[in-house]
Amino acid sequence: MRDLSQHLELLSLNTATVRKQASLDRIIEAAVARGIGLIDPWRDQVHAIGLDKVARHIRDTGVRLSGYCRGGFYTGANAKELAAALDDNRRAIDEAKALDSPCLVLVVGSLPGALSGKPQSIDITLARSQVRDGIAASLDHARSVGMPLAIEPLHPMQAADRACVNTLEQAPDLCDDLDPGRTGALGVALDAYHVWWDPKLAAQIQRAGVGRLLAYHICDWLVPTRDLLNDRGMPGDGVIELKKLRSLVEAAGYQGAVEIEIFSEAWWSRPLEDVLDVCISRYKSIA
Amino acid sequence: MRDLSQHLELLSLNTATVRKQASLDRIIEAAVARGIGLIDPWRDQVHAIGLDKVARHIRDTGVRLSGYCRGGFYTGANAKELAAALDDNRRAIDEAKALDSPCLVLVVGSLPGALSGKPQSIDITLARSQVRDGIAASLDHARSVGMPLAIEPLHPMQAADRACVNTLEQAPDLCDDLDPGRTGALGVALDAYHVWWDPKLAAQIQRAGVGRLLAYHICDWLVPTRDLLNDRGMPGDGVIELKKLRSLVEAAGYQGAVEIEIFSEAWWSRPLEDVLDVCISRYKSIA
Repeated sequence: MRDLSQHLELLSLNTATVRKQASLDRIIEAAVARGIGLIDPWRDQVHAIGLDKVARHIRDTGVRLSGYCRGGFYTGANAKELAAALDDNRRAIDEAKALDSPCLVLVVGSLPGALSGKPQSIDITLARSQVRDGIAASLDHARSVGMPLAIEPLHPMQAADRACVNTLEQAPDLCDDLDPGRTGALGVALDAYHVWWDPKLAAQIQRAGVGRLLAYHICDWLVPTRDLLNDRGMPGDGVIELKKLRSLVEAAGYQGAVEIEIFSEAWWSRPLEDVLDVCISRYKSIA
Repeated sequence: MRDLSQHLELLSLNTATVRKQASLDRIIEAAVARGIGLIDPWRDQVHAIGLDKVARHIRDTGVRLSGYCRGGFYTGANAKELAAALDDNRRAIDEAKALDSPCLVLVVGSLPGALSGKPQSIDITLARSQVRDGIAASLDHARSVGMPLAIEPLHPMQAADRACVNTLEQAPDLCDDLDPGRTGALGVALDAYHVWWDPKLAAQIQRAGVGRLLAYHICDWLVPTRDLLNDRGMPGDGVIELKKLRSLVEAAGYQGAVEIEIFSEAWWSRPLEDVLDVCISRYKSIA
């Protein structure tokens, strides 16, 4: 297992971690000033500044992307919604390419309307079928521009509103279905928070293997957890066996970045610089 | 699929559903007055009145049990805690027998100390091993008195503090390991709330089959869900495909009760009689 403590160039900051403190340009400056080598920005943060401006800023500072968040949300209540999702994913793929991201992370979506509290269908089997077909459709464009798609399994507590891929096993199942030749066009974004509980975690990490493990995200599961979305913990503050998990990921061949992604009202309320300093400290000691 | 609308004798009230409104004797009276045929009481509710008194009350009213909640919590930080858990499960088995329950429901436990917010271990693999050994040890006594044990998979959002059995697949895996002869001594308590999201749900229900499906609990998954423990919905108010799920369970051979179990601050704040009336109405129309 790699000793990362002296390798900040392999630490990635998912910029949602400090989304409430600052705009993306300030986040990039603060990260670069600390030697953090990578970022994973969200589309809304990029749009707020402008894609071209962010692309220039990234080139000028030398920071690179470990991923781009996010594509997905493929499900819909009708043909119009399904087509709009495909259009949006096409744009996300092009943006990821413009930012020279190594992959586009997919939060695949689930019951149409559920995210706004008004589900228009409760058929999760249909949602899974729409997701499969949506990824298949996106893959054509993704292949043509050379942008790998990384399916992110989400915790089952988000199965209604955000993603109907909820075990690690489902992601390589989709990869086997849609990219049986393992061309590298389709893989998995593994987030410790979403999968740490999975009884098949070790076996499915091994199965995904080096060609399909495209991203590795970490934070921690707090006990108690007080909110289903925004109460994630800083690595080391919870119960996820992060070193053990990274050893599994690296044993399967992954040699990429370790990305810290925390959605937390508590951490969003603290100064940007303090949060980054704690992220670096925990990356060196815990991750 | 059975038409249950005229069969209140197959409706079971899990008495936690109205635990904040009344003591167990009042709950039983209100359920019996409405023709509800079955209850599944919790140990603390029974202890508050006294086991013998509850057993007499049950005999006098003619209500029967669909299960008894709960055994389990097999994990421990040391040998003393592990032994105490086995003793407690022995008592739970005896209580279930005294109340003529058809099974004892097991919430198996997970990281020691996590339930009180102070995890003493983060090794979920060890927890799973302790649970396996604990159930194996309990089985001896359970067999000797004829009390089937029903392993309840809990939603992964409760994997740290309440149960490290989090997919339906894990439960029949344990059954195959500990009761390969399918003697009926060990089975599964299937709760719609905990497993509705599981991509292998249909296949694993079929696998468990009639001999091992010992209980069927329902409530609903609300969108949004505002609390990890106490924001469950009344059947029909959420996104679980309850009729489809019951059709799967019955196709696998289950012909037992449909038990309504709701942990909800919202429903706990309403009058006992109103909640039971809504349960009956939803049982007839939704379940």
